Order: sequence, then C-alpha cells, then structure tokens
Amino acid sequence: MARPPIEFFFDFASPYAYFAADRLAQIAARHGRAVRWRPILLWTVLKTLGLPPPMETQAKGDYLHLDMARSARFHARPFRFPTHFPTSAHLPARAFYWLEARDQARAEAFIRQVFTAFFVDDIDLRDTGAVARLAGIEEAQLKDEAAARALREAGQEAGERGVHGSPFIFVDGEPFFGADRLPQIEWRLAQI
Amino acid sequence: MARPPIEFFFDFASPYAYFAADRLAQIAARHGRAVRWRPILLWTVLKTLGLPPPMETQAKGDYLHLDMARSARFHARPFRFPTHFPTSAHLPARAFYWLEARDQARAEAFIRQVFTAFFVDDIDLRDTGAVARLAGIEEAQLKDEAAARALREAGQEAGERGVHGSPFIFVDGEPFFGADRLPQIEWRLAQI
Repeated sequence: MARPPIEFFFDFASPYAYFAADRLAQIAARHGRAVRWRPILLWTVLKTLGLPPPMETQAKGDYLHLDMARSARFHARPFRFPTHFPTSAHLPARAFYWLEARDQARAEAFIRQVFTAFFVDDIDLRDTGAVARLAGIEEAQLKDEAAARALREAGQEAGERGVHGSPFIFVDGEPFFGADRLPQIEWRLAQI
Repeated sequence: MARPPIEFFFDFASPYAYFAADRLAQIAARHGRAVRWRPILLWTVLKTLGLPPPMETQAKGDYLHLDMARSARFHARPFRFPTHFPTSAHLPARAFYWLEARDQARAEAFIRQVFTAFFVDDIDLRDTGAVARLAGIEEAQLKDEAAARALREAGQEAGERGVHGSPFIFVDGEPFFGADRLPQIEWRLAQI
C-alpha cells in the first residue's frame, strides 16, 4: 500500500519555504513518498491564531533579514532580497490551485517558477499580469471562485492543525516546523 | 591576537539551549575560540521587546512540547519533560554569576549541572535549597546583590542587541538564533 504523501504547507513569499521545497521533494522521493503542496497565506493563519506576523517587531525583523540572506548563501540558493517584502501571495496561491485542479505536474512546476520569480527576479507578487503570465493563464482566472475557495480552505485547515509558520510539514500527521527540520524529517522517515 | 569569544545568551530553562551548549563549546574549541556564557531570563527580555513568551499560544505550545522531546531524541540527549515548565530560572542564573565572579571553570561546569538537574532529574529551578546545593553555595548567596545586577545587565544588553530567543549566539557580533544555527556557525567560523 502506498504511504500517504508528505504535506507541505507554505507561503509563496516565505524564503524558508523556498530554501526547503526542493530538498523536501528529494527527501520524499528517497522514501517513496509524494508531496502534497499546500500554499496558504501565512498572515491570515497567524491572525486567526492570535500570533503577530514574523517581521512585526524590529528585533525579529532585523534578524530575519540577516538570517534569510545568510541561509541562502549557506544552502547555496540564488537569492536577492525582494523589493516587495513582506507581501501577500494570494495571486500565486490562487493560480496554483487553479492549475492543480487541471494539471498536477504543471502546478508543481509553477511553485519553482514563483520562487525564482520572487526571490531571484524580484517580481511583485501582487502584479496580476506578471503572475498570470508566469502561470500561463488569463488574468481573469486569478479571480476564479473555486481556486479562491481552495486557498481559503487550505488556510482554515492549516489553522486547525496548528500551522504557525512557513514551511510547516506533516509526515503521517506529525508536524515539523521550518526548513531547519528537514534533517529530522529524513531521520523520522528512516524509522517508519 | 586571540579571537574574541563566542557569546552564548541563553535561559537555563530552555531545552534548545541545553541541546546546543555542548556542541557549541566543541565547535568553538575546534576554531580556537572561547565561549562567553551569558545566562538571561528570556521572558523579561521578550517583555521589553513586546514579544509574547514562546509557549503562550496553544498552537505554538503544543508544537514546542512535541518538538523538544523529538529534538532530544534526534540529538541523542537524555531528556525528561520538566514538571515545572515554563519556569523562571532566576536562581540558577544568579548562582552562575556568583560563581563566575569567583571561579570561571566552576561556573561553566555549573551550567551542565543545571541542565541535567532540570531536563533529566526534574529539579524545580525555583527551589532555593536545591539550586544552592547544586551550586555548592549558601542559600543567602542566591540573593547576592552583585550577581542579581550581573543578571539584570546581561538581560538589558541582550534586549539592546536584539536577542529574542534562546539560545542566541554572537560570533564577532553576528547573531545566530537557535540550536538549529550551529551548522551555519561552524560554516561561518571556517570562513573567518
């Protein structure tokens, strides 16, 4: 019987999700698992939990800026600090769910495209035209009712399951928060 | 010229400080660095920064409980979830500064003793008699004015330098937050 997929909840505007996504996919593949990609809007989930956004205070914001750039170098990922940051990634998230309902492989490839567009090419994720072009869909489809609902439902489920950061990963229901937990995920998968 | 010591700000009641302390000492030694141990009371520092304590919300508290126990297994450290947790570690912190003013080596050994007492033997860190016995000092010395001032000053300096978690490590002024940053610290030291 096939093992259930690893669930990867993330915000498209999260550098740590970008640093973790490819490596998580590789880890999953090594252990015969698929990945279920679940874009959410982290700020709306944190709001329901009564938690402040990560960059809200000066001390955390300053540190995260430094840590993101350093972590990119450490993980050897191309990275340019986005001009528009933090931002709301509702457009790429909706485009993802629109694509996913039609073509799973295309939706997965789109994730990598968005990360590159945002963290390397400095695209504004609130630019409807740019996001539609990236997804290869019409701008009107970014307002698709079903895609918007899928995004809302993913966020609701995330909040109910205690997601409070990005990336937030579940392996057979067990939660792992952050790119830093990939070694523990691999260790856990080896025990199953 | 000797390189400056690595600064390790931490709360005695922080499991992640416990998981990181020995490994940080080993990393420092490999790179010819001393460690300057700086116990603080994290909750007072977070309060000045306007940040909530880590365990305040249900979602974060539930996750941290699970993650602490799992991380202990992952790092192969003996660990029993403390009965009194979270707690205020002002007594061991004051005892540390009392010892440090008299005997640096003794103060450093005391750090490991406190971690074992709290995270393995389940000692209540607010028990004056237990902490005094552990430190090998008189109970009255836990009220020592100079030690209490050293603790306050460390907390104040921590807040001013943006410390917002435990452990919080500085290498030549560069901040690294969390046990998860030890690989990046080692990588950074190798570049210097």
